[in-house]
Amino acid sequence: MAGGDRAAGGVAAEGVAAGGAAEAETDGRIRVRIDLGYDGTQFRGWAAQPALRTVEGTLSAALTTILRAKQPVRLTVAGRTDAGVHARGQVVHADVDPDGWAALPGRSDRTPEVAALTRLSGILPPDIAVHRVAVAAPGFNARFSATSRRYRYRIADASSTRDPLRRHETVLLKQQLDVDAMEEASRMLLGLNDFAAFCQRREGATTVRTLLDYSWRRRGDGVLEATVVADAFCRSMVRALVGAAVQVGEGRRPPEWPAAVQHGRARHPALVVMPPHGLSLEEVTYPPDAGLAARAEEGRTRRVLL
Amino acid sequence: MAGGDRAAGGVAAEGVAAGGAAEAETDGRIRVRIDLGYDGTQFRGWAAQPALRTVEGTLSAALTTILRAKQPVRLTVAGRTDAGVHARGQVVHADVDPDGWAALPGRSDRTPEVAALTRLSGILPPDIAVHRVAVAAPGFNARFSATSRRYRYRIADASSTRDPLRRHETVLLKQQLDVDAMEEASRMLLGLNDFAAFCQRREGATTVRTLLDYSWRRRGDGVLEATVVADAFCRSMVRALVGAAVQVGEGRRPPEWPAAVQHGRARHPALVVMPPHGLSLEEVTYPPDAGLAARAEEGRTRRVLL
Repeated sequence: MAGGDRAAGGVAAEGVAAGGAAEAETDGRIRVRIDLGYDGTQFRGWAAQPALRTVEGTLSAALTTILRAKQPVRLTVAGRTDAGVHARGQVVHADVDPDGWAALPGRSDRTPEVAALTRLSGILPPDIAVHRVAVAAPGFNARFSATSRRYRYRIADASSTRDPLRRHETVLLKQQLDVDAMEEASRMLLGLNDFAAFCQRREGATTVRTLLDYSWRRRGDGVLEATVVADAFCRSMVRALVGAAVQVGEGRRPPEWPAAVQHGRARHPALVVMPPHGLSLEEVTYPPDAGLAARAEEGRTRRVLL
Repeated sequence: MAGGDRAAGGVAAEGVAAGGAAEAETDGRIRVRIDLGYDGTQFRGWAAQPALRTVEGTLSAALTTILRAKQPVRLTVAGRTDAGVHARGQVVHADVDPDGWAALPGRSDRTPEVAALTRLSGILPPDIAVHRVAVAAPGFNARFSATSRRYRYRIADASSTRDPLRRHETVLLKQQLDVDAMEEASRMLLGLNDFAAFCQRREGATTVRTLLDYSWRRRGDGVLEATVVADAFCRSMVRALVGAAVQVGEGRRPPEWPAAVQHGRARHPALVVMPPHGLSLEEVTYPPDAGLAARAEEGRTRRVLL
C-alpha cells in the first residue's frame, strides 16, 4: 500500500454500498459502538486484507470469538487509517446478534458492555486498546454520522530533543523548521475547498472538504505537532498537507505555496507525502444523539451528489 | 537482575573507587559530557555486562569506534538505571584521548562536538538518542557533581485512557487509584530521611537521602504521573516509593503508611517494588560551572562519612 491516510467517507461508490449494507443488518441486530486506539507500527493499516495483520482483521476476529458468531463480525470504521498510521480515538460500529450479545456476561452480573470490554481486552494484542463498548444510539453510524475527524502529526526537527520512547510516532527531520511560516501557510488552507491537489485520485470520489483546523505548535521538548481537523479526509490528504507545510518550514517554498497548490486542483509533482508513522487519528466527533440519523443521511447523500 | 532503579552515588566503596579512577584519567585527557535518552525496553539496564545488550556497553562501543580508541572508552553515569528503565535526561562523562577527539571532524569544518554528535547518531541504534556532546566544564563529574535526579513514573489505572503507543513506558493497573490519598502519603516522605526501608540493602552504602519532591498528577488522558526528585537514590528506591503510594491509592493502606514504613528503617515485607518500564530518568541537575568541583568533592565525601 502507498501508506496514505484515508478517512472513511472519501469514496462515494464504496461509501454507499458499505453504508447501505451495514444499515440493513440492523434489522433484529444490535448496533454496538467501539472506541479504540492502536499502535499502527505492526499493522498493515486498518482495512482487512487476506493473510496480512490489520487492525480490522484483528478486532473482527476478537469480536467474532467473544460473541461466538457464526459469520465473521463486520466492522464500519470512522477513519480508515493506512499502514503504519496510529489511532488514539478511532470509532467503529458492528451489528451483532442479540443472543450472542446477551450471552456475553455468562454467569457474572456484569452488563454485556462491561463483559465485552473486559473480554476483548483479554484477547486483543497489546498494540490495540479498546476504550469503550456501548450499544449505539439510534441512527448512529460510525462512518456517516461523524461530523469531523482530528489528526495529529509529530515531527522532531533539529531543535527538538529526540525521545527514543516516542520514536514510533515521530518523524525525524535533520533541518530546523520555521514554525511561524508553517502556521501562516496552513491557515490559508482553512475552509471549504477542493483538496484534489492533496488527494490520491479515485474514480467517482469527491475531493471537496471543509478543513476546520490546521495548526502547528512547538512542544516544550521542541517536537512539532500539527493538528488537522476536517469533516472528512481523502486518501493521503493529511500527510500531503503536512508535506506542503514542511517545505515551507524548510524555507524551500513561500508560505503562499500550499494554497497555490490547492487552487491548482491537480496533484503537484513537488508535493511530498510524509511518512505514516508520524500520524495518528486522535478524535472523531459526532452530533448529539438526536441528530445522528439525520447526519448519517446527510453524510451519505452529500458524497453522492458532489 | 532484580530490576531496581539505582542512581549512581548510592554505594560508598564503589563510588570512591570509580570516581577516583575517573578523575585520574583526566590527566592529559579531555573530559566530555554526553546528554542522552533511551528506550530501556530492549536493554539489560545501564551497566555493561558481558554478552548482554546494555546502554553503557552500546554507547561505549560507539564512542570507541568514532574515536578509534585503543582501549574501550569508559563511562561515568549520573543515574545507573536498571533493566527496563528508560531515560530522557541521562548524563555521562568520558575522558578521551585528545588526538582522537581532535581528529573527529576529519576534513569537515565541524567542531569535534558537532562531529561527535553526528557520528554517534549515525551508528547508535534507534533506541538511544544522543542530545548533546560537549567538553565538560572544569571539575565536572557526571555522577558526583549532580545535585539532584528527577524521575517520572507512569501508571494507567481504570479511569485512564489506555494508549498503546505509550505502553512501553506505562504500567497498567486494573483498579482506579485515589490520587489525593497518594499525594497526601507522598508529601509525608519529603525531606532528609533514612530511606533504608525502600532500598535494596548493600554493604557499606548509605540510605540517607533528601527527597526534594514526590508528587502525583492525573493527566488529561487520565494517566497518573509521579514526579520523584532527590539528591540521589539508592537501588529500587523510586519503584518502592511508587509501590507504597499505589497501595494507598488502592485503599489497602492509609496515607500514613509509607511514612511509617520509612520510620521503621527496615525493608517492610508488604512493600511492592513496581515494574521497571513505568520509570524514566527525566533530568539530572548540576550546579553552575563554578561550583562543579566543590560539589563533586562534597558528593564524594558525604557518602564516605555517612
